Amino acid sequence: MTEPKLNCPLPLNYEQIVMAHGGGGRMMQQLLDKIIRPAFDNDILAQQHDSAIINIPANRLAFTTDSYVIKPLFFNGGDIGKLAVCGTVNDLAMSGAKPLYISCSLIIEEGFAIKDLQRIVQSMRASADEAGVKIVTGDSKVVEHGKGDGLYINTAGVGVIETESSILPNNIRTGDAIIVNSDLGRHGIAIMLQREGMDFASAIDSDCASLAAPVQALFDANIDVHCLRDLTRGGLSSCLIELAAVCGRQFEIREQGLPVRQDVRSACELLGFDPLYIANEGCFVLFVPQSQAGAAIATLQKHSNSQQAVQIGTVSEEHADGRVILQTAMGISRILELLSGEQLPRIC
Amino acid sequence: MTEPKLNCPLPLNYEQIVMAHGGGGRMMQQLLDKIIRPAFDNDILAQQHDSAIINIPANRLAFTTDSYVIKPLFFNGGDIGKLAVCGTVNDLAMSGAKPLYISCSLIIEEGFAIKDLQRIVQSMRASADEAGVKIVTGDSKVVEHGKGDGLYINTAGVGVIETESSILPNNIRTGDAIIVNSDLGRHGIAIMLQREGMDFASAIDSDCASLAAPVQALFDANIDVHCLRDLTRGGLSSCLIELAAVCGRQFEIREQGLPVRQDVRSACELLGFDPLYIANEGCFVLFVPQSQAGAAIATLQKHSNSQQAVQIGTVSEEHADGRVILQTAMGISRILELLSGEQLPRIC
Repeated sequence: MTEPKLNCPLPLNYEQIVMAHGGGGRMMQQLLDKIIRPAFDNDILAQQHDSAIINIPANRLAFTTDSYVIKPLFFNGGDIGKLAVCGTVNDLAMSGAKPLYISCSLIIEEGFAIKDLQRIVQSMRASADEAGVKIVTGDSKVVEHGKGDGLYINTAGVGVIETESSILPNNIRTGDAIIVNSDLGRHGIAIMLQREGMDFASAIDSDCASLAAPVQALFDANIDVHCLRDLTRGGLSSCLIELAAVCGRQFEIREQGLPVRQDVRSACELLGFDPLYIANEGCFVLFVPQSQAGAAIATLQKHSNSQQAVQIGTVSEEHADGRVILQTAMGISRILELLSGEQLPRIC
Repeated sequence: MTEPKLNCPLPLNYEQIVMAHGGGGRMMQQLLDKIIRPAFDNDILAQQHDSAIINIPANRLAFTTDSYVIKPLFFNGGDIGKLAVCGTVNDLAMSGAKPLYISCSLIIEEGFAIKDLQRIVQSMRASADEAGVKIVTGDSKVVEHGKGDGLYINTAGVGVIETESSILPNNIRTGDAIIVNSDLGRHGIAIMLQREGMDFASAIDSDCASLAAPVQALFDANIDVHCLRDLTRGGLSSCLIELAAVCGRQFEIREQGLPVRQDVRSACELLGFDPLYIANEGCFVLFVPQSQAGAAIATLQKHSNSQQAVQIGTVSEEHADGRVILQTAMGISRILELLSGEQLPRIC
């Protein structure tokens, strides 16, 4: 890429971010040229213009954004950079789009270690490469010490929709099978154990992963996908409650069929959490006609982060306000409700 | 738009943001349903999916992002919401794109007043309407008191490039006229006077504005635009120095021709600032063949925020490292250099 040659180069001899790194001057240029652009390096970013110019081979696009404020920045199974790329890639994939381009905007707190920043942008690049996307445009801002928390990252993403069908909550139909690709609750529990200093003996790592490949595999296998949704903040329950409300139907879920690892279940009991409301970063729910459930599950199980794919329930009937019913292991049915707030703050 | 009907509605009886507003539960839903979605309301946002699905009438797109951390949130001539929409619209316009779709991601500090949030999202909507863009997707996160500064906003934007030519720094040619659309330094000075409590007697307001219309007018008038760049952080000088380095040419600027209002000039003297390095939010620089300079200026002057359009200099010759020379009013030439950091932190 073309490096702009500055009039008066100054060595980047800081170990920590200072306010001047956000000021539009030489120090900001150097931070971009030495730390950030080399990590993301690609032909589009190298244009160094106010926007990235991208060529899109179709006219139906998906466009999404998320800001990431996770604490801690580094956790078992990932870091905020991996999360910021995978999270936005997954939002595109959930709309049936093939993720193509990502933006990266950093809000850095004064005093943040530059080596940590470097590690994080390199992690973003690695995750982008794995998901087949390019980081093509970005921004960085610096805020005073005490006005941030190390680093917040925003990513936006653009993808192209190659399928003819629309992947939307309103496409959910009575009789659809409800499938999840993976075991539930690992991300939130991994973060929580780490925050509480309880991760020393734990093998629970976040499920943080790109879901672009298993979703693409569903399309390639001609599965008639009605809806997809990743199970982030609020976990499986919040996701299903929201989808049931939008499509105006009742979902019935069998507690016994829910894939939750024993160590995650134990940690939830210890900490007083319900795994159905715990955030995930590599799980999604899938609605397909019941006749295609077996094929969809078999397709998913070929992918490393979807080997636990399993049907967990059914869309049973229309229901004006939407409703999610959990049939417990004891044979009791209960209506799932949105939590008021959250079990775990800042897990994404 | 379809409002999702929640199982157990709870009145939004909070005046301030609490952590639970970011938790993926009922309170987050209510914040979105009562404050944010009604402000942005449009058919695409109403799909309520992980990504917005957008139709684009061409295959060459511009994609950009910026995070906004301006302090204070409300200022003479605008607020962080207007800034966040105009800033991203302008980055698209500077790439020769017609801005179409914007995302909005909020990082809200616990304790932030909900009425201020409402005022800001309504301001975003008004600015989006004025610029002819839709806010189609978004995200909100809440961080603890002391881990933010009221509100940070990220916007990303997508626009379509309808011109055949490429608007890029590398297209700047020797002999090009260098034109600015408006007087310089108002945004940074307005913010600074307000921060210092010196704005009581001042009529200096930010130039914050969408530049989509004057740029479109240039294309409609068939002006052969070589490059456009808005003069944000670091002001005119930093912008020109960066462009000169990328295109490998020398720019010569006449100090006497630079449009700086007398009150801005006085405030700069008082505060010890150089107006050439002060941030703007409604100014851009334009490179066109000298033969088209008159037509370009006449076209710009028909627009309310470009009535001061004027040629400020010329691209004089090739120069390997790029160089910007200011010919002062006293007849002395000096080389402009990037400041190390910034004169004014957090002005955008």
